[in-house]
Amino acid sequence: MDFNGKLNFYTEKINEALKKATEDFPRGNIVSEAMAYSLLAGGKRIRPVIALAVAESLGGDMDIALAFGCALEMIHTYSLIHDDLPCMDNDTMRRGMPTCHVKYGEAYALLAGDGLLTYAFSYITDKVSDKEKAFDFIKYLSHMAGIEGMVGGQTDDIKAESESADIETLRFIHARKTGALINAAGAAGAIAAGLPASYAEDYTKSLGLAFQIKDDILDVEGDEAKMGKTLMKDINSEKSTFVTLMGLEEAKGELRKETDKAIDACRLFGEKGGFLKELAEVMLKREN
Amino acid sequence: MDFNGKLNFYTEKINEALKKATEDFPRGNIVSEAMAYSLLAGGKRIRPVIALAVAESLGGDMDIALAFGCALEMIHTYSLIHDDLPCMDNDTMRRGMPTCHVKYGEAYALLAGDGLLTYAFSYITDKVSDKEKAFDFIKYLSHMAGIEGMVGGQTDDIKAESESADIETLRFIHARKTGALINAAGAAGAIAAGLPASYAEDYTKSLGLAFQIKDDILDVEGDEAKMGKTLMKDINSEKSTFVTLMGLEEAKGELRKETDKAIDACRLFGEKGGFLKELAEVMLKREN
Repeated sequence: MDFNGKLNFYTEKINEALKKATEDFPRGNIVSEAMAYSLLAGGKRIRPVIALAVAESLGGDMDIALAFGCALEMIHTYSLIHDDLPCMDNDTMRRGMPTCHVKYGEAYALLAGDGLLTYAFSYITDKVSDKEKAFDFIKYLSHMAGIEGMVGGQTDDIKAESESADIETLRFIHARKTGALINAAGAAGAIAAGLPASYAEDYTKSLGLAFQIKDDILDVEGDEAKMGKTLMKDINSEKSTFVTLMGLEEAKGELRKETDKAIDACRLFGEKGGFLKELAEVMLKREN
Repeated sequence: MDFNGKLNFYTEKINEALKKATEDFPRGNIVSEAMAYSLLAGGKRIRPVIALAVAESLGGDMDIALAFGCALEMIHTYSLIHDDLPCMDNDTMRRGMPTCHVKYGEAYALLAGDGLLTYAFSYITDKVSDKEKAFDFIKYLSHMAGIEGMVGGQTDDIKAESESADIETLRFIHARKTGALINAAGAAGAIAAGLPASYAEDYTKSLGLAFQIKDDILDVEGDEAKMGKTLMKDINSEKSTFVTLMGLEEAKGELRKETDKAIDACRLFGEKGGFLKELAEVMLKREN
């Protein structure tokens, strides 16, 4: 199967599993509806795709990787819902659709985020009967998603809006804000294959950083219609980004460098690392 | 040791463990500070007290029960922080202190709640090396804290502000909004003793309901200074409570009835159930 065939295969599996998960949310509850609305609003599903691809390249259990990957997507989605709230980024559009609080109101959007974050953990324990693997992933995931990881990165990101950050600070922010959940995606695949959670970190750390640099580049170069959101936001708010700090050309050079490091790290996945190599290249070229 | 001696002994252990937990939060991060501020703001620590008392009465592992109980307190605290936000109850005082968003701003308070919820899970996996027990508790806890439990109850509670609820609806709301985490406290003790998560539910379900009825009574009869928060809020907002629906006297009768059911359920704990019996009685008589 070629890269796009494999990507579609993974994405369909993920979307099907997420759809099924939402069918188990309690009925007649507006927050269940808001959770499903945001979780099924589309998106690249990059975290569960990485989980599945790492697991497959390492000969891991694909059902376990899928469950872990879907949990990651729930956590990613909760973070977007909360990030979009008026007290945070105050975004009204996401993936071409009204954001959760625009559609359901702030109180229910807040609870939808809380609900998805919590559901990620019950989903893992419901779907994965191997308690040791589930424990190991929950341990890694909760550190990556919390104050030491994503939440810590979001905090410093807010701070960086009012005081300009240097490149090292920016790297440290994004290693947690975006990078931590990408690491958790690699850990999902590694644990599903019976390997240590940190096994794929050389790959996921570079991929995560490349992902963020690309986002910053798209903020100035992207097409609003393709992106499904308002652009030039960071630039106009004078927020520190890789582009504002390095300039566009140097940021592109940095993107290439981190992408090459990710590709180089694919030796971790042996002969079956082709998809993950190509994924890094495709991420570099993406338009949304 | 008499009841108060035991209660103080448990509470000190809990406060010490929570203090220690906050010392592990990343330094120099404003959200770490906000998390610690709310977590150490006091409170009755009723959930971890129940966890410890159930574990001790059943001969369980007290270190495990303490870890589970502290995780519960983190989740309880996150729910208070988010509940107090302007888009929810818009409360400015809690336990006699400014609420988290009044002190740190809305964005950081939102993240402090997210951080505490996530930290509860990393705390369990860091402190409890028995992976099976940790898994079993995370499974029960995440169901109780999420859309099927506490978050679902909060959702229906918001709905009940705009359309009046009947007694059955109110019971169903509170079985999840307050009751679910009280059940999780019982499960913490039961699992620490190698018993099924649901073992103590007969006790905790009645105790949780009694707890909420008492809260509704205190909202009209309590002393603001002792409660550390604004009272008559529910009454003035015309929200359905046990008191508005049943009248004060009948609500007191219901409180007695549920307390007696909890006391009766203490047969589950055998000879060592004395503390839990007395706890139910003390909860009925509390002034804050």
